[in-house]
Amino acid sequence: VPKQVDHEARRGEIAVALWRAAQARGLDRVSLREVATEAGISLGQLQHYFANRDEMMLFAVEFMSKKNVERVAARVLTLDANSPAARVRAIVQEMLPVDDDAKAGSLMNLSFLLEAARNEKLGAHARRRALALRNVLEGQLALAMRADELSAGHDPTSEAARLIGLAEGLRANLHLGVLSTEETLTLMEQYLDRVLAGH
Amino acid sequence: VPKQVDHEARRGEIAVALWRAAQARGLDRVSLREVATEAGISLGQLQHYFANRDEMMLFAVEFMSKKNVERVAARVLTLDANSPAARVRAIVQEMLPVDDDAKAGSLMNLSFLLEAARNEKLGAHARRRALALRNVLEGQLALAMRADELSAGHDPTSEAARLIGLAEGLRANLHLGVLSTEETLTLMEQYLDRVLAGH
Repeated sequence: VPKQVDHEARRGEIAVALWRAAQARGLDRVSLREVATEAGISLGQLQHYFANRDEMMLFAVEFMSKKNVERVAARVLTLDANSPAARVRAIVQEMLPVDDDAKAGSLMNLSFLLEAARNEKLGAHARRRALALRNVLEGQLALAMRADELSAGHDPTSEAARLIGLAEGLRANLHLGVLSTEETLTLMEQYLDRVLAGH
Repeated sequence: VPKQVDHEARRGEIAVALWRAAQARGLDRVSLREVATEAGISLGQLQHYFANRDEMMLFAVEFMSKKNVERVAARVLTLDANSPAARVRAIVQEMLPVDDDAKAGSLMNLSFLLEAARNEKLGAHARRRALALRNVLEGQLALAMRADELSAGHDPTSEAARLIGLAEGLRANLHLGVLSTEETLTLMEQYLDRVLAGH
């Protein structure tokens, strides 16, 4: 029988190769050829899966966000189901890259944001992802409010947007080496302590 | 008499040409040759001023931060000298790019941050700039504290770092089109209202 190729697995391997290649030189500078080399396949084989750079980028970003969602979901599942505030904390903390793997992933994410600001298709995708994250957080904050775990004068909609903004800005400063991992976590903790009542 | 060339002015023109060229294609992708074309000079003339890409980038970033400092200083000078809280608001608001010019500049800044995360020399420069900004803000927050304009339980050091983090994260979401200019300003206003007492 002819060898069966698992096309979805192959696409996943290519996505991982893209992130690895991008880590060294930046997402902007990575060519299809370099990704093929990193994945150990020919350029022609790569082009069998992705017709152009944008298609590959989109897939690679979707692949990575799926991994992120799985990571957050796995963490949230270990938590006390009765405390939405604990879930808010977990989601926000997962946005802060504290180990080397998360840092590399987060730097790719920043590169992608920059590409997205110049490319309408990638931009639309990035906006959908960002809104989905905000919706999840807003939902947990609304539950926290109902459980009297949200501080007075705070509304779930604004808090979700502000928490994400703060996490992304702190993350940028962590990458730059302006903040240490510990400072970053403390700045976020202090903020969460003000937003979430009694936790 | 031979024509006198104002070298500092020429370097400034090249910096502006770099930002213009980078706006279309991204800072990562701009070559020295493209910048020369945009500035209306030859590649050789450009190389008379900057030996390589990194040198040009460093100068262009310093040039832009000088412009930023001038803009913020000009605004702060129009304010009531007796209210450090008003100065804190002004500095933070100047970090949020509300018009097209500021948006373009801010996007360049994000590109530069990404470059800085991969390039030690640019990184060191970016850290110096970031720390200088934080020091200015921390100083005004300390004055606000002395004037009873800082909310209880807030310290100038953490607040300076957190305000900058929030401003940078909101800015990224504004660029992506996830937040409108008005939403961005409101999210920051609400936060400032909690941090600054009685304002």
